[in-house]
Amino acid sequence: MLISDTIAAIATAVGEAGIAVIRVSGPEAIPEVDRIFKSRIKLSDAESHTVHYGHIINPQTKEEVEEVLVSVMRAPRSFTMENVVEVSVHGGVISVTRVMGILLQQNIRLAEPGEFTKRAFLNGRIDLSQAEAVIDLIRSKSDRAFSIALKQVKGDLSQQIKKQRFTLIETMAHIEVNIDYPEHDVDSLTSSFIKDKCGEVMEGITKLLKTAEEGKILREGITTAIIGRPNVGKSSLLNTLAHDNKAIVTDVPGTTRDVIEEFVTINNIPLKLLDTAGIRETLDVVEKIGVERSKNAVNEADLILLVFDASQPLHEDELVLMEQIRGRQCIVIMNKIDLPSMIDMDVIKRYFNEESIVQMSVKAQEGIDALEDAISRLFFSGSLESNDLTYVSNVRHIALLNKAKQSLQDAYDAADQYIPIDMIQIDVRLAWEQLGEIIGDTAGDSLLDQIFSQFCLGK
Amino acid sequence: MLISDTIAAIATAVGEAGIAVIRVSGPEAIPEVDRIFKSRIKLSDAESHTVHYGHIINPQTKEEVEEVLVSVMRAPRSFTMENVVEVSVHGGVISVTRVMGILLQQNIRLAEPGEFTKRAFLNGRIDLSQAEAVIDLIRSKSDRAFSIALKQVKGDLSQQIKKQRFTLIETMAHIEVNIDYPEHDVDSLTSSFIKDKCGEVMEGITKLLKTAEEGKILREGITTAIIGRPNVGKSSLLNTLAHDNKAIVTDVPGTTRDVIEEFVTINNIPLKLLDTAGIRETLDVVEKIGVERSKNAVNEADLILLVFDASQPLHEDELVLMEQIRGRQCIVIMNKIDLPSMIDMDVIKRYFNEESIVQMSVKAQEGIDALEDAISRLFFSGSLESNDLTYVSNVRHIALLNKAKQSLQDAYDAADQYIPIDMIQIDVRLAWEQLGEIIGDTAGDSLLDQIFSQFCLGK
Repeated sequence: MLISDTIAAIATAVGEAGIAVIRVSGPEAIPEVDRIFKSRIKLSDAESHTVHYGHIINPQTKEEVEEVLVSVMRAPRSFTMENVVEVSVHGGVISVTRVMGILLQQNIRLAEPGEFTKRAFLNGRIDLSQAEAVIDLIRSKSDRAFSIALKQVKGDLSQQIKKQRFTLIETMAHIEVNIDYPEHDVDSLTSSFIKDKCGEVMEGITKLLKTAEEGKILREGITTAIIGRPNVGKSSLLNTLAHDNKAIVTDVPGTTRDVIEEFVTINNIPLKLLDTAGIRETLDVVEKIGVERSKNAVNEADLILLVFDASQPLHEDELVLMEQIRGRQCIVIMNKIDLPSMIDMDVIKRYFNEESIVQMSVKAQEGIDALEDAISRLFFSGSLESNDLTYVSNVRHIALLNKAKQSLQDAYDAADQYIPIDMIQIDVRLAWEQLGEIIGDTAGDSLLDQIFSQFCLGK
Repeated sequence: MLISDTIAAIATAVGEAGIAVIRVSGPEAIPEVDRIFKSRIKLSDAESHTVHYGHIINPQTKEEVEEVLVSVMRAPRSFTMENVVEVSVHGGVISVTRVMGILLQQNIRLAEPGEFTKRAFLNGRIDLSQAEAVIDLIRSKSDRAFSIALKQVKGDLSQQIKKQRFTLIETMAHIEVNIDYPEHDVDSLTSSFIKDKCGEVMEGITKLLKTAEEGKILREGITTAIIGRPNVGKSSLLNTLAHDNKAIVTDVPGTTRDVIEEFVTINNIPLKLLDTAGIRETLDVVEKIGVERSKNAVNEADLILLVFDASQPLHEDELVLMEQIRGRQCIVIMNKIDLPSMIDMDVIKRYFNEESIVQMSVKAQEGIDALEDAISRLFFSGSLESNDLTYVSNVRHIALLNKAKQSLQDAYDAADQYIPIDMIQIDVRLAWEQLGEIIGDTAGDSLLDQIFSQFCLGK
């Protein structure tokens, strides 16, 4: 695909800040910006990877529109592999609006969301799974999720996919020989070769898929509902968790409320707490037992934190609740242990094993660590300690891995039953294509559009 | 003042975006970043104003923390006149948190709000009024306000202040001669020289102060209240104005609601509409007549938009309203002119002149332009068309200009009355100091702290 036009977009978040950056990319990026840039130097004469002070001017009126620093990165040494100019302007809405306004009056159009990354992909600098990891990087809600995405950006997953595909190509070549000489029937040697190779690749895929559940959780957060009777301490618990753990995020000044209010990170595990409205609804889940909506909230949750007031006897509603969530991923919180205990633990232990029960006093700030440990234990069983695993966290990748695994299973079974070899070939090729779709080797235009439209603008 | 430490802060707004930029400034900025930057080149060897691709690493574990582009700007060719390193990272909270975390583990501390600009001031690159204009740039709510701030950043106001101060220095020198020879009494020649010079400077100050009202409006927005009886069309008018004029701002993707929801820009005049809650209160101002709170809302407004339903006869309440706002900056809106008129215009014209009455149908989208023109006319009388004026928009500057003017008036009066010349000298010196405080020549530490603490972090 030949890319001939030059695009621009604001690459940073917009808000009151020191600076904002506008990115321009395309064959004509340098001369187009040159026409509206007043400086001691012409950008056309500037070397790649140099920074220049000057002013953006309105080319008609010659009025100075903004004071800027401009970086020039020449093709192919740039994010998009095209000529790129980054214009660093004062932060704030007006400044970026003015400069974007002037840029878009030149022979430059507004970039679509994800278009810079799409160009990096189309120009061959990164493959599709790497491009998708760029979104994950930006959207990551925890340190661990970021690390995983960063590895994927570097091509970690791509390498593994390519390795499996190479094995499949070898297998196909081997089969091809047999097809080319149709007098050769599928003999047991060929059959066992195919089964070996398919088995090998299936094993690799299975290993990747095993990381998927955890990978997905790291990326999207564990949907968590805090439930219990009124006044058992649900809100205080929520506030404590939010306060303790939001601190990591709010070290960053200017963090918008939008980003953090739904996420709390505990031992690097992102919990997606239902938003305030949602939580308020689940808070009185007991009162609403039977109401379809609150049932749904509990049903949707990956994790339930069931809070009891240990200083009160068990209430009938609580028996209903325990019945309702039986078998779910659940941590039971015995709150108010600073008061004399009145609750019948034997009943509770009938429903939950001891490991998932945490003694707490939210008010006295006791047992918070125990709760955090219980959450970690529940989800990672310590397995995440190894940093060497490649995590598959993208739903599209998971679906394609599953499909490829099925295709290989079909090929395996076919080989096992000495089915004609060109039928087997079809399944192996299918698996090869399905894996290829992960890295974008065999991806169609509509898929690309769908993937890149998820990006934010300016990336 | 010797600045010896190295500081860092996030310079861009934080949010989901393509990139974010972290700025590091100080004598050790380059070697400190070098220790955690893995690339083909050492930053210490890099020329000024060059950009380098690489990774930020954790110096203990050698783990790659983030993929970055790093710009080096060597002293004194930087914003702060110190060595500056700008690290461009992926957008999003986690990325900046990770990289800031690593930076702050080095010999680098978190910058205070405004500290980069403060260093630019302390190192003599800009004066105080220029530094203050940097905040105005970032916070500007309209194109015009931005242009004015940009001129001030370039030193427009500083030049004018320096010119007046030079005249005062001359005057003081002249007076000094007389003090050194005390046998000379203040003669009429000296007296008239002092009066001439003081008059000249006062005139210059008066000219600057004349721009202050408009400058302040451009910077802070015109506080606007929309009032009228229920169902006259206040909310529709608000929505129409907001929709029409927010469009300018929302061209910028990612603009947060916070920034725009209180501001609407009409012909480049920023209107600060009371926020939704506030507006809802003023909407039913009639019902609450007599209630102190709604009276206050009207009293605080710089501009009142009084809406009538022209298809209804005047209501008694509306007579009360007109009485209440008599003499205020007001535009009267005759809404619903698409319906037969029932209102008695003669009564209304007793309160308002014809120029401030606008015929509209918000529903039919008629008369919007007329309203916008009326607002422009009211506030700028066309005088803003000239782009050559220096606008004073900062409350601190206005206060100091007024003080200096008063000091000069005192000197003038004293000279007029042949009061001993060393007394006059005191007043002239005072004016000189007061003007100096605007550009920071005579500003104390506590003033500096107060000014720079208004900045956002990372500037």
